[in-house]
Amino acid sequence: MRPKHMNPIALRPIGTIHSPYNNVAGMPIQPAGAKGVRGMIKMLPEYVPGLLDLDGFSHLILIYHFHRVEGYALEIRPFLDKCMHGLFATRAPRRPNPIGLSIVGLESINGAVLHISDVDIMDNTPLLDIKPYVPAFDFRSEAKIGWLTGKVGEVTQFKSDNRFNE
Amino acid sequence: MRPKHMNPIALRPIGTIHSPYNNVAGMPIQPAGAKGVRGMIKMLPEYVPGLLDLDGFSHLILIYHFHRVEGYALEIRPFLDKCMHGLFATRAPRRPNPIGLSIVGLESINGAVLHISDVDIMDNTPLLDIKPYVPAFDFRSEAKIGWLTGKVGEVTQFKSDNRFNE
Repeated sequence: MRPKHMNPIALRPIGTIHSPYNNVAGMPIQPAGAKGVRGMIKMLPEYVPGLLDLDGFSHLILIYHFHRVEGYALEIRPFLDKCMHGLFATRAPRRPNPIGLSIVGLESINGAVLHISDVDIMDNTPLLDIKPYVPAFDFRSEAKIGWLTGKVGEVTQFKSDNRFNE
Repeated sequence: MRPKHMNPIALRPIGTIHSPYNNVAGMPIQPAGAKGVRGMIKMLPEYVPGLLDLDGFSHLILIYHFHRVEGYALEIRPFLDKCMHGLFATRAPRRPNPIGLSIVGLESINGAVLHISDVDIMDNTPLLDIKPYVPAFDFRSEAKIGWLTGKVGEVTQFKSDNRFNE
């Protein structure tokens, strides 16, 4: 029997992310490939008080549900390589827990609406959490990036195809 | 009625994070305050194939369940300030969806066990996802950090108290 703390965890969306992307094909694969792309978050009204002082931050960490994907494989061929890699060594959306993470720009907040930039997220994505991005907490200099070494520059040109499609 | 994509989402832990921290009081409040602290991840055996090539990365993004917290308030007084702030402008663990995010060092992988460093996470925490940390995806230079300006240096000394305790 699994211990109690390994039971399923139920999360409820706190809002919806809107973007110009309605199809997986043609999407940027990271915010670095989505420079200038504008989007919007509509928070559920009950969570608006939690946005107080968020407007002082220029960047937000969004945690969201990859709601259009189903299933996963533990070894995959990611967009940026021709070889197979373990799923947890990639940022592919089809994962055992389909949770997405993007750091976006915060342009302005107007009531329950947040205007955001550098958005690499599908339209109508359920938002699970917003955290302020803080370089002192979230930046590690001199990180080694394994199989991605020499490949991340391509991310600004690269667009998604249908391989991880719903 | 809420649209279907706003329904609850069920997640299942993929492993357990172990650390020296059994109590909230005295814990570091960010990995930057946990330099050198060692921990361990025990993956559930079925997910081990997904770790292939992860050992090339020096840092991991861990997404996990704040399993010891309950409830939340939308305006709180965080560890690093005397003023109230909106919850989403803080990294406090009591959140509508109690999801934690830490960037830790990866020391080695041995089968289903990952040895990690700079661990600011409670012992026995259910792990939801591992993503490779990639500065080109995850670093934003010149980020503005609102109310945290001038306060993040304190994070290396600051320890948790019981205010967000279970």
